[in-house]
Parts: sequence; C-alpha cells; structure tokens
Amino acid sequence: MTTDTIQSFARMLIIEAGSKIRASLDGDIWISSKSNVNDLVTNIDQDIEKFFIQRIKESYPTHRVMGEEGFGDSVESLEGVVWILDPIDGTMNFIHQKRNFAISLGIYMDGKPAFGFVFDVMLEELYEAEKGQGAYLNGKPIPPLEEAHLSEALVGMNASWSIPNKRIEHDGMIQLVRDVRGIRSYGSAALETVYVATGRLDAYMSMRLNPWDIAGGRIIAEEVGAVVTNLRGNELTMVDKDTFFIANKSIHRQIIEKYIRLK
Amino acid sequence: MTTDTIQSFARMLIIEAGSKIRASLDGDIWISSKSNVNDLVTNIDQDIEKFFIQRIKESYPTHRVMGEEGFGDSVESLEGVVWILDPIDGTMNFIHQKRNFAISLGIYMDGKPAFGFVFDVMLEELYEAEKGQGAYLNGKPIPPLEEAHLSEALVGMNASWSIPNKRIEHDGMIQLVRDVRGIRSYGSAALETVYVATGRLDAYMSMRLNPWDIAGGRIIAEEVGAVVTNLRGNELTMVDKDTFFIANKSIHRQIIEKYIRLK
Repeated sequence: MTTDTIQSFARMLIIEAGSKIRASLDGDIWISSKSNVNDLVTNIDQDIEKFFIQRIKESYPTHRVMGEEGFGDSVESLEGVVWILDPIDGTMNFIHQKRNFAISLGIYMDGKPAFGFVFDVMLEELYEAEKGQGAYLNGKPIPPLEEAHLSEALVGMNASWSIPNKRIEHDGMIQLVRDVRGIRSYGSAALETVYVATGRLDAYMSMRLNPWDIAGGRIIAEEVGAVVTNLRGNELTMVDKDTFFIANKSIHRQIIEKYIRLK
Repeated sequence: MTTDTIQSFARMLIIEAGSKIRASLDGDIWISSKSNVNDLVTNIDQDIEKFFIQRIKESYPTHRVMGEEGFGDSVESLEGVVWILDPIDGTMNFIHQKRNFAISLGIYMDGKPAFGFVFDVMLEELYEAEKGQGAYLNGKPIPPLEEAHLSEALVGMNASWSIPNKRIEHDGMIQLVRDVRGIRSYGSAALETVYVATGRLDAYMSMRLNPWDIAGGRIIAEEVGAVVTNLRGNELTMVDKDTFFIANKSIHRQIIEKYIRLK
C-alpha cells in the first residue's frame, strides 16, 4: 500500500460519489433537521457517507472514518490513518440551489495532514493536494498566493457575525466590513476555503465548524501559502469543533489582531 | 424588422461578447476606479460596451443604448427602443475571481420591457426572456416559482446593510438576518436577480442600483412570478438610480412591511 494508491483511490471515490449526487437530483430528496431547524440533512448526505465508509473499509480495514453524518468511527485522536469526510458540505445550498456544495475529504496519517480534496460537484471542479507537493485544480497547479492588502480584500463571512451574536464582538466585525473591499457569503466552508486557495477570496471565517468542514480544504490552501488557525490564532486540533479562520498570509495576523474579539 | 430578429441578434451579440471576455482573461487587464476606490472598471468593461454599441448602431441606427460605461446615449426617457446594458455586472468579481460576473441586457420598447438577458460568462449559462413568453435557461424553460416561506428563505444581501449605514435602518435588517434561513452575498445584482428567478435565492435587495444592473434580470424574473420593485414597494423607473428589491411573490410584501425602513 503506497500513499499514491490511497490518493488515487480517494480521488476515484470522490468522482464516483459526485456522479451519484448529481444523479440523485432528479429523484426524491428527504430533508430533516439535526441540532436546529436550519441544520439540515438529507438522505443523500447519509447515503454518500455510507458509500464512502463501505468502500474505504473494504480496501483499508484499519483506517478510521470521521464523517459528518455519524456512520463512521468515533474518532477522538488522529492515530493511524483517519479519513475526515463531509459527504455534502453546504447542505442548505444542495437543497435550495442544487449547486454551490462540495464533497470535502482530508486524510490524516498519525496526526499529520496527508491528502486534501474538495470537489465542487456541480461544476466538476476537483481541488486536491498531497502535503508538500503543491495544490491542483482539475490537474492544473494552483499558483502560490500573491500578497494581499486589507483595503482590497474580499472576505467570506456570514452576516450573522456583524450583528449582535453570542460568539464574537460584532463591533470589530462591523469595522472589518467597512475596511475591506467586499464581503461575500457562499454557504459552504469547504468551497470558501478553496476560494481562498485560488485567491477568489482573501480570507474566510466562521464561528463554529467541525473538522470535516475544513479537513480537506485546509491542506489544499496551506500548499499555496494560506494560513489556517482558529480565530484566536491557534492551531486547529482537527478533532474538536472550533472557530475557523483562513487568510492570505499577508493579512492573517492583521485581521485577528485588529478585528477579532471572541466572547 | 421583427422582434424575433432583435432577440436573436441580441443573443448572438451576448454570446460573442462572452467569448471575447473569456479570451481577455489571458491578457492584461487594466483596472481603474470611478466614483470611489471600490467602484471599479477595466478596459474589458469598456471594450465590451463599445463592441455592443457599434454592432447595435450598425444594425439598428435608431435604437438608443444606455450603458454603464457611458459610451452610449444619454437616456432620460424610454421612448423608442432602448438597450440597457451592463457589459460586466460584478466587475469586482471579474477582477478578483474571474468568475461570478455577467453580461446584463434589457431591451425596452416605448417604455415597456421586451427582452431580458443575463449571461453568466464563465459558466456559459444564458438566462433569457421575452416579455409574456416565459423565461429560459440555456433554452430550457425556467419553471414558475413555488411558494416560499420567510423562515426557510435564502436572502441575497450585502453585509453592509445590517450594520449602521446611511441608507437603511439596520435594526430591521438585523431582524431579517435572524428570521430567515440564510444570507448569501455573491456580488453581482444581475446574477442574484436570476438566482431569485430560479429559486436559488428567495429574495435579493440592494440600496443603490442603476437600471443596467437589473434591466435584463427583472424581465426574466417577472416571467416566473417574482416581484420587482424598489425598497419602498414602488415601480422602478428604469431610468434613474434607485433602491432595488426582488422577491418570491409570497414574501415580497411581508419583507418590505416588516423589515425595511429606508432613511
């Protein structure tokens, strides 16, 4: 078993899962909510996660899978090989828009990032990276990020964080909205993370993400020089829920120091 | 000269202009700013507007063209045939992302909407409508909008309007952000308008748009039952700058009455 085999195998599963998701759009989709009325899940999210788990366990019985929908293993540390999967990141977009969602997958080996994948299913855009080997979009190298400037930056952020809320002082966020060139909000952490990798956004933040939302994208983005931390500027554990902040290296520290005050 | 000829001619110009824009992405793009540092224009916006004007005037010398970049006619009323054009709607996206921008074109005849086009240049998605004849996306009919509910709505809105600003009471906007399912922000009024037409968004608003931002999209969206007004609920003149509000019919009045208080 070489790491090249794992990468090719993962890529093949993702392409196949993407086809299944696109085919599912013509059939019935069952929607239910999880922790709150806007935390949605569909039968497709669940079926796709089961598909991955079955195929991974067939080929690599010792590997563990941490998946959003909970059909995988209960993972509390990153020993061995762990696949961190979100079968559909941006479920709300999947339901409402039938676009702007992604399969997100990160493969970690003994705690270290090894392979990252984000697949924009409808555009058939596959972002991927092997740690230390650069990042690719549909096989073409993604160039290293150029320097960014705050006053010209496009920042991905939900409007919820610049209004009074229980997680972050919104006064700082208001100032950020005013100081940057534009705010965008796409509703998929995985896609917004690879948008930072491709320079379409210069930063993206969220107050509460799970490892599977960002496990794939962060490996890709770090290959081109983006900086990934939580909103306190600390390393992510990739096991626990946390805040999330990714930005072009030239504005990462500046945004945290000047605008972010968590509650 | 039949109206069918005008529609086919307009469609042909848009497809050709889209090819020119895509080809331009490999060359040098010159960027300058207009009314403020974030109101951007490029040589491509200008070249594409000139291309349209030249071709329209050759074929239809009596028609007038109202274009964003000012190379067309000075249009103060909609007598005769008026082409209302934004060669690149979402210029900031064009520059930063090389995607998520559109050609927007509305053709008005004696003050009445006749044809609307919005072309997502990078996805090659052409939304179009002839007044009274339904709306189409790449030749496939766009179905009439289904009923929407505020608590399940996705609303397109810039974060600027839910923070203190000089155009709208932000308290109402904060409540709107809390009451709907999600807020999205894409940075192209033309695209966000056709997203409402396709049900990907349930509403979209902006505090300050020009006729060319929305002239094409509104005709398309109205064909499937979306309601288009300014934020006071009044008819748009299509000649002057104004606020803009488009929504699924079932939530249009509700949002204006409950959340919108202009300054």
